[in-house]
This record gives sequence, structure tokens and C-alpha cells, in this order.
Amino acid sequence: MDKIKRNERIAAMMQAFASRPGHYFSLNEFTDRFGAAKSSVSEDISLLRGALTGFGLGTLTTVVGAAGGVKYVPASAGEPVDTFLDSLGETLLDPSRILPGGFLYMTDILCRPDAVGRIGDILAGRFLEKEPDFVVTVETKGIPVAMMTARALDRPLVIARRDIKSMEGSVVTINYVSASSRSMQAMSLPKRAMPPGKRALMVDDFMKGGGTANGVRQLMAEFGASLVGVGVLIATDQPREKKVQEYTSLFTLYGVDEAAGQVELGRTGIKK
Amino acid sequence: MDKIKRNERIAAMMQAFASRPGHYFSLNEFTDRFGAAKSSVSEDISLLRGALTGFGLGTLTTVVGAAGGVKYVPASAGEPVDTFLDSLGETLLDPSRILPGGFLYMTDILCRPDAVGRIGDILAGRFLEKEPDFVVTVETKGIPVAMMTARALDRPLVIARRDIKSMEGSVVTINYVSASSRSMQAMSLPKRAMPPGKRALMVDDFMKGGGTANGVRQLMAEFGASLVGVGVLIATDQPREKKVQEYTSLFTLYGVDEAAGQVELGRTGIKK
Repeated sequence: MDKIKRNERIAAMMQAFASRPGHYFSLNEFTDRFGAAKSSVSEDISLLRGALTGFGLGTLTTVVGAAGGVKYVPASAGEPVDTFLDSLGETLLDPSRILPGGFLYMTDILCRPDAVGRIGDILAGRFLEKEPDFVVTVETKGIPVAMMTARALDRPLVIARRDIKSMEGSVVTINYVSASSRSMQAMSLPKRAMPPGKRALMVDDFMKGGGTANGVRQLMAEFGASLVGVGVLIATDQPREKKVQEYTSLFTLYGVDEAAGQVELGRTGIKK
Repeated sequence: MDKIKRNERIAAMMQAFASRPGHYFSLNEFTDRFGAAKSSVSEDISLLRGALTGFGLGTLTTVVGAAGGVKYVPASAGEPVDTFLDSLGETLLDPSRILPGGFLYMTDILCRPDAVGRIGDILAGRFLEKEPDFVVTVETKGIPVAMMTARALDRPLVIARRDIKSMEGSVVTINYVSASSRSMQAMSLPKRAMPPGKRALMVDDFMKGGGTANGVRQLMAEFGASLVGVGVLIATDQPREKKVQEYTSLFTLYGVDEAAGQVELGRTGIKK
């Protein structure tokens, strides 16, 4: 009987952790819910942690104190992650993805919940130590990956708009120069989107010159927020000098040869 | 030792199910991974199902056969869901949400991963029987909730764009009349966004006249897809006659009184 109860607790706790990664659950939440002793719940947590790390599925992090608790941190490195990224890289090399102008079609990947969920977990892991208060992106294509990164961090997402609608109330708009097209662009956020003094992590699907990221930095400054990180799925190798100095990309795009139907892309920092 | 093994399997299986709801996992995947007998894994699944239903966290659905397996269906009704929706309704009544023109500010809710994740689970549950092949939305504000609904169903998301960029390749664009503003609008999808003959579920944050939903129906027709459902977080009570006949909303907005600072809103189908 006691054995069954432990299994049930393990199942319900894992459901809670995996359904809301990044969120600190207090031990009391679990003891109340299960009518179990603190020592039993602590033992459950050790057991869960052991299983998660054993299978390479992430870990549980404990913070002691009144505001503390236990949170689930999904795997962002290790063998299952490498396998996933390698296979994603293979998918991206498919010549049928080449679009006129040497662009890569990747909307399908960016909209597959399983893929984008794992990308979000991985990007979140790269910025855990930066302790962002929220994730920011610019509409539209980067929204799913930014949302899933925000999910893995249990932080709100803020979406800057290109074209601001009246229903958002007062807005702050900045103008900036796109690094790749050298054209003037604008991005806006509702004034009430965030209180001042926050730490922002920018997430996007693609970066070329870094103009958008630099625009986000300016926009964040208008809100008294600091940009503590920039994470993208793919960054181009050229230009080497981006408009933001620090960024993290999971893949580097070395080139797209339309005539030859070839995509040159590899995992960032890993020789092919 | 055997006891520990079962606990570890339970933890790892629940992690898999909760990280990818809606996805059919075959028993073989689990027996291979754990080096366990089919009978043991079957027992684990009964145990997990019992714990999930017991705590109101959803259920596991089994489909027998070669293409079958076991999938996790998050809770979309029951006490925890009611508690969540009631509390969300309270949040939406806050007069500080009233924007000029009688609109409601809800971008913050639509970008909180925990809230939007649960809304996605609930909307997904309402359309399980329609067996959608993908979820479709129109940029921008509905994307997070549509993404989370797609996640709960393990189906891809398709995002129709207002303003099509060259990098998407060939696109199909339709023009339609907005029911509320009576103005001409356009929405577009890349031609390669979906193969013909698919079943689409439209998800959005808000519906007034239903013009956008009707536009999506037209767009789906261009792709040889059928619109099998329309689900929104909030629909206005007026106009009663929407441009789509069937839709599901979690909340009904009866009115926003700017002068009095009052929002009239309730859970759809539930008297306040």
C-alpha cells in the first residue's frame, strides 16, 4: 500500500514538474497535496532527481529558504540533446528548403511543438545563469521558439510588434536600421508590457547582421530593462561582426548555394 | 531493487508523456528503454493512469495496433480546470485592463507560459474528437495560445501572415471583409505550408464578428483543407450572429463600460 502511494506521488510530482519547468514548487505544496510527511516527499524528490539525471532528461534544482523550493530543469546538453540537434541539422540541410534569394525555409520546424519545445529547453539552459526575468522577441516567426524558451524558464514572454494596433493602449516605438537590408525599421511595445529594472533575454529564430537584436536592446533601454542575453536557433557566419557583440546560436549557416542546391550549415562550435 | 526500478520507470515515463502530450508512445519504446518486460510496462501505465485520473491531471489513452500506443491527454475539465478558469476570469475583470475604445488588455495573460499552457490544454480537450491534423492561427496575439493548443494535440501549428515576406517562397493570399471594422483584410500562407486534404483547427485569442475565422475557412479551402473547429479564449456576446456558425469560447465578453470602469465577462455557458 505504501509502495503504491509512493508511485502515485512520483507520477503526480513528475507531471507537475514537467508541466511547468522552471517553476519552484515548495515542499509544502506536495506534503499538503499528498498528506505525506516532509521526509517522504524529500525522498521522492531524490528519487525523481536520480531517475531524471540517470536517463539524461534534466534535473531537479533545490533552493532552500522561504522563497525556495524545487524546480525541474529540462535537459539542455548531453546525449539525447546532441542526437536531437544532429538530426535537426540534417533536416535543415535538405536542398528543397532553399528559397529564392538564398533563404532557408524553416517555418515547418519552427511550428512543430515537439521540435520547438526541445529547442526552447536547450536555449533556456544556455541562459539559466543570466537569470532573465522575461523573454522578448519580435513578431512573427520567432514567437514559437521564444514562447517555448519562456516556458522552460517559467518566465513571461514579451512580443515586440512591427505594426502596433490601437487595442494595446499607449506604446513605445523605436526606429532602427536593419543591418542586412540597411532599411529603417520600427518595433513597438505597449507601455504596460513590463515594469522597469528587469532583465531581458531575447530569443529569435534567425540572426544575420544583428540589427533586430540591437533594436531590441534599444527598446529594452526605453523600458529601463537590460538585455542579458541573445539566443537564436540559427546565425549566419557572415557578417562576422554583428550589431550585438554577444549572442548564442545553436546552428551556424555558412552559406546557401542556390545554383548548386547546397546548404552549408553546422552546429555552432562543432566542426562538421 | 525492483521497487526502485519501477519508481524510476514511472518517473521517466511521466516525463516523456508530460513533455509531449498527444503523442502516441509505443510500448516497445518503453520496454527497449528500460529493458523491462511488456507486462511490467503495461502495469506501469495502469499505475500512471490511476494516479493521473485520481489527481485530476488528465489521463492516458491507449490505441491498440501497429500505429497505436499510449498518449497523455492533459486535463481539460474537472475541478482543477474549473479553479484555474474561475481565477483567470477574475483576473480578466480587473478594470485596469480596459483600453481606450472598450478593448481589454490581455497580452500579459496570453504570454504567461503557465496560463497559456493550461488554456491550450483545455482548448485541445474540446476538439480531441474532431481529430485535427494541425492548428491554424492568424498572427500575432493568438500565436502563443494556438502554439500551446498544438502542443497539447501534438500537431503542427500553421501561422497565417498579414504581411507576407519574400523569404516564405510562393504564397497563397485571400482577401476578406472584417466583420467588425467592415474593412478589407488579407491573410497569406506559404504554398508549402500544408499538403491537401487535411483537417484544420483554428485557435485564436479573441473573436468578435468572426470575420477572421471565416477568412481562415476560405484560406483553408484554397489548400484543400477543411476547418473542423474554431476555438477562442474569449468571444464577445454581441453580435450574436458570427460569420462562422460553430465555435467554442472559454469566456464570453458581455460588455466593457469604459465610463464606469466595468468589465462584464463570464465563463461561456456558466451563469455567474
